[in-house]
Amino acid sequence: MGKDSYNIPDIIIGRLPVYYKYLKNLQKSNKKYVSSEELAQLTGFSSSLIRKDLSYFGTFGKKSYGYDIFCLFQQINIIMGFNYQKKIILIGAGHLGQALAYNKGYFERGYELTAIFDKNPNLIGLVINDIEIKNINFLEEFIKNNEVDVAALTVPGAAAQKITDRLVTAGIKAIWDFTEVPLKVPDDILLEEQLINEGLCKLSVKMNQIRINDSEIE
Amino acid sequence: MGKDSYNIPDIIIGRLPVYYKYLKNLQKSNKKYVSSEELAQLTGFSSSLIRKDLSYFGTFGKKSYGYDIFCLFQQINIIMGFNYQKKIILIGAGHLGQALAYNKGYFERGYELTAIFDKNPNLIGLVINDIEIKNINFLEEFIKNNEVDVAALTVPGAAAQKITDRLVTAGIKAIWDFTEVPLKVPDDILLEEQLINEGLCKLSVKMNQIRINDSEIE
Repeated sequence: MGKDSYNIPDIIIGRLPVYYKYLKNLQKSNKKYVSSEELAQLTGFSSSLIRKDLSYFGTFGKKSYGYDIFCLFQQINIIMGFNYQKKIILIGAGHLGQALAYNKGYFERGYELTAIFDKNPNLIGLVINDIEIKNINFLEEFIKNNEVDVAALTVPGAAAQKITDRLVTAGIKAIWDFTEVPLKVPDDILLEEQLINEGLCKLSVKMNQIRINDSEIE
Repeated sequence: MGKDSYNIPDIIIGRLPVYYKYLKNLQKSNKKYVSSEELAQLTGFSSSLIRKDLSYFGTFGKKSYGYDIFCLFQQINIIMGFNYQKKIILIGAGHLGQALAYNKGYFERGYELTAIFDKNPNLIGLVINDIEIKNINFLEEFIKNNEVDVAALTVPGAAAQKITDRLVTAGIKAIWDFTEVPLKVPDDILLEEQLINEGLCKLSVKMNQIRINDSEIE
């Protein structure tokens, strides 16, 4: 992949999940090649930006055909590390946590959900998608005895920092954060905030603009 | 708000949910002012970018104190249209759909969840968070008789385009899309794709880089 790929800029990393989504779906079609212009139409990114991003990974499209969809998808998978097995645990078995227990997105990305934790006695012992909800008291013991790469956090905001501190102390290096509160972690911990309502926010901004513009016209 | 705010660039709209999250939490603290440097530390955006974004909305921080947190939060709310009531319906009452039925993020953003639809006879009639799951057959009738601003889509990928076409024909103007398949909509329809596994992808990329770098060192 070349030395460049050792430190992919965050701005490009932010676009990788979008490339992945569309290439995954192009794979299912009977198309063999895709042009940067077609990718631009799908992703909303400019074709020049796309060519720049993909050339960053040493990908070369055939001028006449465009990019080989299969090769490009394989390459994106490798760059994203989806070809390596990673173990994830889920902290918080509330409504969102339970939905994430059934998330079909893990396997294709090389993740395996290995445990679910909660402190609610009514949830502990329940089996969700073949995984039994464990008592949060056993969190540290489980992390100590099992290789865990990522912890998904869906606990209430009030408990988020406390649980985060426990995860960090227990040796977790990456946190997938669904709590909408700011979390403090040491510099060597990877923290990805998943703003579940991000799309709802963007829609509201755009609908508001249309509303304002319409009221101007009237 | 000034004419500029009529057409906020997508790049800035993309950062608004992040500003909103941190300002919401700063509100709960007893701080009165926040500097662009403090916001930079929280959001990961550069302080100059933040000053540029906020000045775009005509916000001026006191040089000595920084930005008034309350005023800035109110202004962000107005720009995001959270002060206007919007009605949302949910299509697909599977695991993710049910989690979204309990989503606490609607009210603070001016959204009201007014209906949930599914085609599964085992789900139709069930009450989730005080809302009864309706038969998808009544989708068009409901949209006709009720003002619906946004439809959240959590149906299986195979059904996504068909349901989207029905929503568009029924007059829905904004779709919050959780299906990880590309959807075709007319140009006048707002479509926001919520990639639920985006954070998982980013973590994988970064963990993969660390893995590669470590193996280089060994």
